[in-house]
Amino acid sequence: MTVEIIPIEGIPEVAPGDDLPTIIAAGFASSGVVARDRDIVVVTHKIVSKAEGRVEPAPSEADYRALVEREARAVVRRRGDLVIAQTDHGFICANAGVDRSNVPGGDAVLLPIDPDRSAHRIRVRLERALGVTLGVVVTDTFGRPWRRGIVDVAIGISGLPAILDLRGQPDADGRIMEAAEIAVVDEIAAAADLAMGKTNRIPVAVVRGLDLTGEGRAVDLVRPPGEDLFR
Amino acid sequence: MTVEIIPIEGIPEVAPGDDLPTIIAAGFASSGVVARDRDIVVVTHKIVSKAEGRVEPAPSEADYRALVEREARAVVRRRGDLVIAQTDHGFICANAGVDRSNVPGGDAVLLPIDPDRSAHRIRVRLERALGVTLGVVVTDTFGRPWRRGIVDVAIGISGLPAILDLRGQPDADGRIMEAAEIAVVDEIAAAADLAMGKTNRIPVAVVRGLDLTGEGRAVDLVRPPGEDLFR
Repeated sequence: MTVEIIPIEGIPEVAPGDDLPTIIAAGFASSGVVARDRDIVVVTHKIVSKAEGRVEPAPSEADYRALVEREARAVVRRRGDLVIAQTDHGFICANAGVDRSNVPGGDAVLLPIDPDRSAHRIRVRLERALGVTLGVVVTDTFGRPWRRGIVDVAIGISGLPAILDLRGQPDADGRIMEAAEIAVVDEIAAAADLAMGKTNRIPVAVVRGLDLTGEGRAVDLVRPPGEDLFR
Repeated sequence: MTVEIIPIEGIPEVAPGDDLPTIIAAGFASSGVVARDRDIVVVTHKIVSKAEGRVEPAPSEADYRALVEREARAVVRRRGDLVIAQTDHGFICANAGVDRSNVPGGDAVLLPIDPDRSAHRIRVRLERALGVTLGVVVTDTFGRPWRRGIVDVAIGISGLPAILDLRGQPDADGRIMEAAEIAVVDEIAAAADLAMGKTNRIPVAVVRGLDLTGEGRAVDLVRPPGEDLFR
């Protein structure tokens, strides 16, 4: 089936304490997008973190560095100013997810404390506001160790699986598939970014046409330490 | 703008020597998809490799292991049967990209020798057959060191950029963006996989609605050794 990625435009600047589901629902209305059952609403974590007050106003360089160390459960690699760290959620990313770009006044935006829970809260309220069943994905932009460039990945999920486990299922030739745990929600996050653009500030997009049900968590995407060959 | 991901269905089994652009063009026709200028045609490497004869018929386990070692320029990590290796292209992936799933009789499919060139050849012939200007992306499915599950990434490109470099551009607040080299073609690869499915054998999809021009190469995505902290 054809999959559509639809930007939700007109989302205003979000501030601590703002009611994000209401803001997103208004964005659907002002964009002329009528939500459908099984739509997946993808939200960049920045507006989630800001609504949740996970913002430090305009830190100095030293305070920013201290913030990164505070958010890091463990530092995986360090080179000059670059810190690759594991967060309390288990994610491994640059600067423990503390971000300074795209923020007025250079405020630092931290990751939500529990992004799966953030996704769930948005989903419950947005389903009520829009009158449909939804999936919600909260995203961040991560680098990759061996590939240049950054891509969006899922850090919070509600109402859909994190991984499609096709292992043990016969493929089109009847052969049992070997390595087929697909990180579908990361593919959804990456796809949504295509419609968001980076300088346009479109923090919400809808991925439509996938028939996914399940109750995954983004923390399911964290590779357990015993399987991790690169720490 | 809305981005569409359209599967091209009805692509038959591909064999060495097959004329892949003609097969893909026929797939557009049988799927009822009318190509448009700037469509991006995403092709899983398996049918590219097969058309190019990069297949080893039904190797024994020992021969398969030898094939992996032969395709590896360098082994990055090894644990039991799992080999993470760098290919001659520079990509770092499991089993040096030698794949055995989804193949009749358990044949092993190697990566194309020069996937950027493969993409270019497909593009030139497909543009002529369909009468439009296209981008072409050849994909493979890679794991990630710290995140569970596999995702599709680009291993060959023609007619579009690998990376969108937004560094130094002001964002919506007029602030200069810090880290904004977006691996857009990997996001395209991941998005296309959403419409392909894994057990359905849909090896071609169209990503429509992006306005990308450029002449990137997938090898541009390989992080130079001097920047690589995880080797």
